[in-house]
Amino acid sequence: MNGYFITFEGGEGSGKSSILKSTEKKLADLGYHVLATREPGGIEIAEKIRDVILDPEHTAMDARTEALLLAAARRQHLTEKILPALEEGKIVLCDRFVDSSLAYQGFARKLGIDEVFSVNQFAIQDMMPDRTLFFDIEPEKGLARIAANKNRERNRLDLENIRFHEQVYEAYQLLVSKFPDRIQVINADQSFAQVEFDAVKYIDSYLKIRKGG
Amino acid sequence: MNGYFITFEGGEGSGKSSILKSTEKKLADLGYHVLATREPGGIEIAEKIRDVILDPEHTAMDARTEALLLAAARRQHLTEKILPALEEGKIVLCDRFVDSSLAYQGFARKLGIDEVFSVNQFAIQDMMPDRTLFFDIEPEKGLARIAANKNRERNRLDLENIRFHEQVYEAYQLLVSKFPDRIQVINADQSFAQVEFDAVKYIDSYLKIRKGG
Repeated sequence: MNGYFITFEGGEGSGKSSILKSTEKKLADLGYHVLATREPGGIEIAEKIRDVILDPEHTAMDARTEALLLAAARRQHLTEKILPALEEGKIVLCDRFVDSSLAYQGFARKLGIDEVFSVNQFAIQDMMPDRTLFFDIEPEKGLARIAANKNRERNRLDLENIRFHEQVYEAYQLLVSKFPDRIQVINADQSFAQVEFDAVKYIDSYLKIRKGG
Repeated sequence: MNGYFITFEGGEGSGKSSILKSTEKKLADLGYHVLATREPGGIEIAEKIRDVILDPEHTAMDARTEALLLAAARRQHLTEKILPALEEGKIVLCDRFVDSSLAYQGFARKLGIDEVFSVNQFAIQDMMPDRTLFFDIEPEKGLARIAANKNRERNRLDLENIRFHEQVYEAYQLLVSKFPDRIQVINADQSFAQVEFDAVKYIDSYLKIRKGG
């Protein structure tokens, strides 16, 4: 692969999706060829899988079914969109990836981080991100941000209680200590401009080192 | 579990689905409490997953995506329908289960039987069938049966070439030798009445031994 694969992770209301969009623009201004995406990424098969996952009427959905569906959508998005972009040498910024499944399904839904990782290994075949930015904000503050944003659509995950989001947060801390070389913590409890600056600075430095620039 | 979990396996046109329906009736006549089902089993979430899998327009579907979706539908069908019936002490007859994924995705699509089994283990958590009937007929003969049946709807799998179906058949032979205690071979290249009789006789004998009758 000629490109670099960078994922953005964090709890609800961490701001990572908005930061990802503006980071894409900033990196493009710096001359990088960037693709910003998020699962299901406009891939028809993955979109249809996502519809099944997020339908608020699917309250009977088992946690293992959910984990398998997420891995399936991830696989399709990876093969149809991410891998071709990496082969073209692009910097791929992806909003959520394997770490989200480890945190949400593996830890918060108690399926086991190792078990969920094994299912995801089947899906991604060692295509782990080169680097991951974890946008760190306490769950109470993140949820308060969402509550203040009236334009945001609610989905099935937003309906989980605060305890669930605390578990997700704890899981991300575990992942940061488990993968210290891959995951970079970004303090997301700052102004948008500051978080964006920290994210762009980290990615630019990483790419310059990798490219020997 | 008080009940018994029996799966029917075989290639396209092996007749297993028709035999399953008539076996259900015969076993009920013999006094057994039977549930006949097949994935997705009328379970809404699993039906929607199945729609994504079998859509003939989804030619871009990656084999690993397909395997993960099948495991997801299997999980939901298992938890919502099969397990409750087994807990009620029923004899559950299921048209296709894990062995189908091992044969179709693991072997014929070359993802690896062990790898696909591992993903399915995540889905079923050791809920393997008590017994499996493999309806044995050469793929050419099975496909000829399908071609002769004008009422049968074609799906994405029927469009595969003969080589694919030969691989599936070879895989089932491997599984029979790998799980000789669990999988019983039924000669499906006989009259319907004879195949049905062999299937009912085998299941009735098995249940009588298990119940010490």
